[in-house]
Amino acid sequence: MPRVSDDRLAARRREILDGARHCFAEYGYDGATVKRLEEATGLSRGAIFHHFKDKEALFLALAREDAERMADVASQEGLVQVMRDILARPKDFDWLSTRLEIVRKIRTDPGFREAWEAQSADREAATLARLERKRRAGSLRKDVEPEVLVTYLDVILDGLVTRLASGQSTDDLHAVLDLVEASVRAPAGE
Amino acid sequence: MPRVSDDRLAARRREILDGARHCFAEYGYDGATVKRLEEATGLSRGAIFHHFKDKEALFLALAREDAERMADVASQEGLVQVMRDILARPKDFDWLSTRLEIVRKIRTDPGFREAWEAQSADREAATLARLERKRRAGSLRKDVEPEVLVTYLDVILDGLVTRLASGQSTDDLHAVLDLVEASVRAPAGE
Repeated sequence: MPRVSDDRLAARRREILDGARHCFAEYGYDGATVKRLEEATGLSRGAIFHHFKDKEALFLALAREDAERMADVASQEGLVQVMRDILARPKDFDWLSTRLEIVRKIRTDPGFREAWEAQSADREAATLARLERKRRAGSLRKDVEPEVLVTYLDVILDGLVTRLASGQSTDDLHAVLDLVEASVRAPAGE
Repeated sequence: MPRVSDDRLAARRREILDGARHCFAEYGYDGATVKRLEEATGLSRGAIFHHFKDKEALFLALAREDAERMADVASQEGLVQVMRDILARPKDFDWLSTRLEIVRKIRTDPGFREAWEAQSADREAATLARLERKRRAGSLRKDVEPEVLVTYLDVILDGLVTRLASGQSTDDLHAVLDLVEASVRAPAGE
């Protein structure tokens, strides 16, 4: 009965990912020890590492899930909407601060870096594709290359994550996103 | 001879700060152990902690130096120029990735957070004062509050630091900063 077995494996994998996400959010990358991952998932290390080679693979799988979800929203509604979603439900994105704690690892560990960049590439490609559609439809400013606009939006996403992760005020951020949205748009009457 | 003694103390303090900056840049906050701080400064732990109460105080003194320098530039030439300086000499800002590794500490340690926010407040105040001068001179857009523009620029600064710290491409960043600069300016002809 391979069907049942596949479902069970998928459900188990889901449990591990959900538990691990909370564990990273609470303790950070280094602080998410194997013991804490066991507690958070309710599973043994044997079960966890049957599904994921190591902690790094588990972390990257979570980042990949985020990237896919963000790419979907970015493709349909734009990267600014991704940021509005983060602002609307910051708790769901608690674990994003872990992304900042690992910048050194991204910079200095070539294997990790490659895997990391592969997942951001999807989000960037989805954003670029949408911007190019908007450009053809005439609703995007024409004096700046779409690639530059993608980088601009990506820098703002990183800044927003940093701001939330350090617990700074989010009061002005909706107005900031309005400004960002307006600044990629074609000027009125063009 | 209190004069000489003051000069010596200041020189010693300088040596400690310069060594510590390199040490944090290379090993990160947690990785900058007392032993490594001794090696990086060429001084004993006794000498180091005579000048700074603990590692946290040393780190905050470095952050304070940055904040003062950034506030000077922000006050005279604007926060976008601060970012252009970072882009022009990324190596000088290597240690900024350490700022990201401590976002959890900023969020969860109230004493540290207060000290951290005090130093960013100077930079924000300097940026705000400059934007208000520009607004009076008519060169700032009027449809967005200066406070929102400060937050906007601050988010971009954080995003830029994240991008450099994770070793991502800086190719498009000059063009991004041009866009940012234009987006806070009054529209031509207004």
